[in-house]
Amino acid sequence: MKDTIKIRPGFIFVVAISFALLSCAATAQSITDVITPAEPLVLKQQGSFFVGGRQTQSDATGWDQTPPVSAFGSGDVTVDQMYVQFQIPMTKSSKRNVPLVFVHGCCLTSKTWETTPDGRTGWYEYFTRLGYPTYLAEQSGRARSGFNGTTYNEVKLGLQPPSAQPFVLIATYQFAWSIFRFGPSYGMAWPDEQFPMEKVDELFKQVVPDLILSEVPDLAAEFANPTTDNPTVTNMAALARDLGGAILVGHSQSSGFPTQAALENPTGVRGIIQLETGCFANLTANQITVLAKIPMLIVVGDHFSTPQPSPACTTELKQINAAGGDMTFIALPTLGLTGNSHMFMQDKNNLEVADIVHNWISRHVERKHRGGRD
Amino acid sequence: MKDTIKIRPGFIFVVAISFALLSCAATAQSITDVITPAEPLVLKQQGSFFVGGRQTQSDATGWDQTPPVSAFGSGDVTVDQMYVQFQIPMTKSSKRNVPLVFVHGCCLTSKTWETTPDGRTGWYEYFTRLGYPTYLAEQSGRARSGFNGTTYNEVKLGLQPPSAQPFVLIATYQFAWSIFRFGPSYGMAWPDEQFPMEKVDELFKQVVPDLILSEVPDLAAEFANPTTDNPTVTNMAALARDLGGAILVGHSQSSGFPTQAALENPTGVRGIIQLETGCFANLTANQITVLAKIPMLIVVGDHFSTPQPSPACTTELKQINAAGGDMTFIALPTLGLTGNSHMFMQDKNNLEVADIVHNWISRHVERKHRGGRD
Repeated sequence: MKDTIKIRPGFIFVVAISFALLSCAATAQSITDVITPAEPLVLKQQGSFFVGGRQTQSDATGWDQTPPVSAFGSGDVTVDQMYVQFQIPMTKSSKRNVPLVFVHGCCLTSKTWETTPDGRTGWYEYFTRLGYPTYLAEQSGRARSGFNGTTYNEVKLGLQPPSAQPFVLIATYQFAWSIFRFGPSYGMAWPDEQFPMEKVDELFKQVVPDLILSEVPDLAAEFANPTTDNPTVTNMAALARDLGGAILVGHSQSSGFPTQAALENPTGVRGIIQLETGCFANLTANQITVLAKIPMLIVVGDHFSTPQPSPACTTELKQINAAGGDMTFIALPTLGLTGNSHMFMQDKNNLEVADIVHNWISRHVERKHRGGRD
Repeated sequence: MKDTIKIRPGFIFVVAISFALLSCAATAQSITDVITPAEPLVLKQQGSFFVGGRQTQSDATGWDQTPPVSAFGSGDVTVDQMYVQFQIPMTKSSKRNVPLVFVHGCCLTSKTWETTPDGRTGWYEYFTRLGYPTYLAEQSGRARSGFNGTTYNEVKLGLQPPSAQPFVLIATYQFAWSIFRFGPSYGMAWPDEQFPMEKVDELFKQVVPDLILSEVPDLAAEFANPTTDNPTVTNMAALARDLGGAILVGHSQSSGFPTQAALENPTGVRGIIQLETGCFANLTANQITVLAKIPMLIVVGDHFSTPQPSPACTTELKQINAAGGDMTFIALPTLGLTGNSHMFMQDKNNLEVADIVHNWISRHVERKHRGGRD
């Protein structure tokens, strides 16, 4: 424990409150932290839309005992849709890069890619400034993509037993500290930790319950299986196709989604980027053939307790590249970047990590014009 | 029923699918609809942050039976925080208007203010282009603001009876059609309906379950009571104060929030705008004194089954203005705009309605510089 710095979240909280009281604004901490960039951001277009979704019936909407809307206790609802926000930079078409689609990890939302906990520019804005049409997809079953709450209402009404309802997965401070590799134990940060630990409380606010993942009976199998019926994967493949080509980027729980999407429908998948963890060691020959046509990148941070690449990643790298593919593995410490957490898109050196991804795209993914949207 | 046009959602769905198949993209409908504006959007700043939130304990996170993270079955979590996204236009400070904070209604998210279901510019971008620093607040207990799922897990584990868990409120197609006043009955639209009914399926995708509203035992009382313990209201008051002054805008279920926020802490509230429904007929003399210092606007659309303003609004208007206040009531038909739905920020004439709000702000709310953020 000698090589750690002790940080007590409670202490941080007290300091933050004291600072806030001094500035007469108890909740001003996060907003006053937000840093104004030196140059304006010029957008050709911004907006949001949905991908996918299917109509189903709910027989327990929760309103049946709620005046004045008790007539709406059952009816039609849409589920499995995926909310997407985007922005396209005002660059010449010839200078515009291939679109990027980012998907966040477990128990988080697209906030992952926005302003960092300490108020710096996130990857959403940064990649837009680099010339990429940038899309943030919110996993189906979560946040703005919605979820189907019918089973919970059926249980409350006694129509189903409590065991029928899925767990609502909640990531605690302790969960985040451990899984995101902030330090060797809760309250202890690595001395070279790149995550802005003085604002770790702002990260904890980003956590939202997950309503789809909880229906996966075996998480380890979900990560290892190249095929899945997770609607987000289908929606990502559809989005890449509808964009006329896109690079898909997954993180953590969603790190396998770009590969799974390409195996479901490779039409629009111009590149696969998986940030942190997850590889497929049991690909079939046909699956390897599909993936060998798509440039693939894996990036991991520092402070893993096991050697990197993992055995599964080592197997996949060998198989893809032996089949003529183009798969790259980058452990950031090998490029001189040390101390990066699982959340390196929010780390203090987050733009340096972004540049590594940008450089890989420039070299490995063919730039192309997208038809029909200029 | 003579003055209605019959629209069958199933029919719309079939047409949409047929169109999509023709263009070789089954889910391309919504993305290809998004319209590129004529002029670029130039932003001084964009980003997101949280307001509020408090630390609590969860003894049932749902992970306790989920390898490999079963060690995290209990721990600390943050609840009641409010996610806010914003953008500030690149205008001279002297030309910049007072900040606007928009809060969406029941069972919806901040998507309410973004691209319309048929791909047109929403109020978020439009008010930014008009020179307003524009903030979208997502209600605590929903979407990117998260919610506390502990009780559901306790019920699943048998630690609490099913009756202990709140309903997960779900708005069906039928609910939306009726409450949002698309027509006299489900599947029938008013002949002058301004909502883009050909894309009503895209609105249905915007619906997410509500996890806070369901804990309110009496919805009618929640709307009528000038005080509330809803954390979103506290967070809105804090945001207005932290911005050094802002106009608060509520819609539908949140239409009373700006007033409730001002009564909790009027420091930063420069204006109150409530879109559709909800007035307070039982204000105390002290409350009237507070509100009489803040310009207030109510805007309602068309096709109400009861006369507008409602008795409660008539009472409040009289009381505020008799006390020297400045409260305005606008029913859009009185200005020649007919056929507007409950969702007029997405209606076909949504920018005309926005201009009415903009003109009211110009005349009734003092423009001021905000300190410390330029």
